[in-house]
Amino acid sequence: MPSKGLLIVISGPSGAGKGTICKALLKSSDLWLSVSATTREPRCGEVDGTNYYFMSKDDFFDKIRTDDFFEYAEVYGNFYGTPKWKVLEALESGRDVILEIDIQGALKVKQNYPEGVFIFVLPPSMEELRRRIINRGSETEESLDRRFKSAYKEINYISKYNYAVVNDTVFNAVSKIEAILTAEKCRVDRLKDSILKTEEVRIYEQLYD
Amino acid sequence: MPSKGLLIVISGPSGAGKGTICKALLKSSDLWLSVSATTREPRCGEVDGTNYYFMSKDDFFDKIRTDDFFEYAEVYGNFYGTPKWKVLEALESGRDVILEIDIQGALKVKQNYPEGVFIFVLPPSMEELRRRIINRGSETEESLDRRFKSAYKEINYISKYNYAVVNDTVFNAVSKIEAILTAEKCRVDRLKDSILKTEEVRIYEQLYD
Repeated sequence: MPSKGLLIVISGPSGAGKGTICKALLKSSDLWLSVSATTREPRCGEVDGTNYYFMSKDDFFDKIRTDDFFEYAEVYGNFYGTPKWKVLEALESGRDVILEIDIQGALKVKQNYPEGVFIFVLPPSMEELRRRIINRGSETEESLDRRFKSAYKEINYISKYNYAVVNDTVFNAVSKIEAILTAEKCRVDRLKDSILKTEEVRIYEQLYD
Repeated sequence: MPSKGLLIVISGPSGAGKGTICKALLKSSDLWLSVSATTREPRCGEVDGTNYYFMSKDDFFDKIRTDDFFEYAEVYGNFYGTPKWKVLEALESGRDVILEIDIQGALKVKQNYPEGVFIFVLPPSMEELRRRIINRGSETEESLDRRFKSAYKEINYISKYNYAVVNDTVFNAVSKIEAILTAEKCRVDRLKDSILKTEEVRIYEQLYD
């Protein structure tokens, strides 16, 4: 039986660079990206199971009732959720799972799966965060101000996370997150679940036989 | 003011390879090695402050009375101890300090400095541990058996540690320990002491000003 994988939650304020970091992590490490379920219609070119798991509202509500989402939210009439069954299946098969999610979502995931590794991505400075939000170009002056103020407020939630990583460069941030994964796999309080089942088990078997 | 350094305690049963790992760590990382204080006479070539801090028994006992050792022990009439004042001085100046110590010593250090990073070095297998103890060549059959049984028993103390690292190869073990140091510096519960004083402080200052 393989050792259980780690759930790595990459979160932080909008504009901190979560998406870029996740893409780079997926290239350099053997991680399984958690894909969201949604009730919205697939757009042109979107593939079920790659971009989203597309579901009817009825199926989505059934899954809510059976507590099958780590978290879910309604955005403009469509529902989006993190499918617990898909994530747990990957973790049980020994895969490390990466989940990119906003702060409200991450806090709900933590309630449901506290043994996850919760990483807060910080922009190098608030000026840089402002610059990144502006550079997206898709914001009006008003929505920009709202996003920026919300990012300010959200940084207070950092204390709920295990780690904070400053996204000064993607390379630095990814290196730190990879180090965090290596370290987490050496944590004694995870031994029973992971290392004990592989390397250390031989020692323990000899010890207690 | 520099951010406070980390105290990294490398411990584990005799024969697990603590010494080799520490030597390799000192070569690859900018760490300060904690040097023990002792009441024994310097041997030929030993340098005060490099091999040991050599002290008179009177001075050593004074330091015990003023609680200036993280831990100390008597071995064949000589005293050995980890000088708290030297370690704290290095940590306060921002240096990461490495301390190689047996399990009994590490548990005492933990009582005195629980914020240290306690790493348990495991041999790849108990056969390998036996082979390593035999290869030292300095053991009688009886003392070898005693050491081996004690190593067996000592592995039970692993639950008191933060991390366990299997010393399959020195390169692997050192890489894992370096990852642990990187990760520990990203821990949110250390932010106040370390990261907050450097990178994140700018964000926080802007946030709360």
